[in-house]
Amino acid sequence: MPSKIVFHTSWFSVDEIPSRPEWGMGEEPFYQISGPDSVFVLPLTTDNKIVLVRQYRPARGRFTLELPTGYIDPGETPEDAVRRELREECGYVSSHYFFLGKWGYNLNRESKNHHCFVALDARRHSNVVVRERIDVVLWKIRDFAKLVVSEEFEDLAAIGVIALAQMRLGKRIIKFC
Amino acid sequence: MPSKIVFHTSWFSVDEIPSRPEWGMGEEPFYQISGPDSVFVLPLTTDNKIVLVRQYRPARGRFTLELPTGYIDPGETPEDAVRRELREECGYVSSHYFFLGKWGYNLNRESKNHHCFVALDARRHSNVVVRERIDVVLWKIRDFAKLVVSEEFEDLAAIGVIALAQMRLGKRIIKFC
Repeated sequence: MPSKIVFHTSWFSVDEIPSRPEWGMGEEPFYQISGPDSVFVLPLTTDNKIVLVRQYRPARGRFTLELPTGYIDPGETPEDAVRRELREECGYVSSHYFFLGKWGYNLNRESKNHHCFVALDARRHSNVVVRERIDVVLWKIRDFAKLVVSEEFEDLAAIGVIALAQMRLGKRIIKFC
Repeated sequence: MPSKIVFHTSWFSVDEIPSRPEWGMGEEPFYQISGPDSVFVLPLTTDNKIVLVRQYRPARGRFTLELPTGYIDPGETPEDAVRRELREECGYVSSHYFFLGKWGYNLNRESKNHHCFVALDARRHSNVVVRERIDVVLWKIRDFAKLVVSEEFEDLAAIGVIALAQMRLGKRIIKFC
């Protein structure tokens, strides 16, 4: 039996998939959360700062500090989307995007992928319109570990992105752990 | 106006929350995904291996390698839950759980928290019943970076947990990036 959409919003849907005996999950249907793939970007400036965004997140009930992220629009490549999100959310541009791979999280429930990038030499672009209600916060790379310990930063997946950047680009570029 | 549950399963629900002008998100209601808090555990053996689990994930359409995770049951503390999940999923026990903090991911949509731990000196406990359909895979810590690059490991949040462990416990215990 095929899956069917049982709940739908403009941002995600819930698909009901009949259970299969070989999954060993019992007889209740499986409910999958689906949505467009996203991009995740770690923007680094030439003066060794991380470009973070602060915004109100209703699901957390507070303002959060995060890496810029966003959906990939229809017709966009992941690199198109990361370029657009960096401009729209931060008013920043970069001429060098380094791809850290396609990752998931919430693997027990979500089908979507997160395409992760580092934006090297990120710089402010004066002529762009920045999306409302998002503040840009620059944070020194060498002080990032302090931010993590302070509990002001709560996004575990972003920690994953930053660790991947350290692994792939080396500690000369990014070092936090 | 209060939020209301508009879709419900045994594992998560979707809450509809009326939009507020100060969020700057337009007039459509906000849809939040809610569920019980979870635990995430990085089990390390005395012979320097990470205890991973391999299982079929319908949302990914394949078998995945992951860190052991699971919901916190009603009445459990996070440490109770991590102890239970390590036994049930892996048949392992530990006498030393190190807490890495309470984290989120999917902050734009999910309210739940993920309580992260390292289980030091994790060891096989012969008398436990292991949950069906989960295979335990031991992976040398020093080869973990190879696994990450191979794309066989796809959980970005787990990379975050491992990086936090490296940051908090030091490279003598865990080093991957």
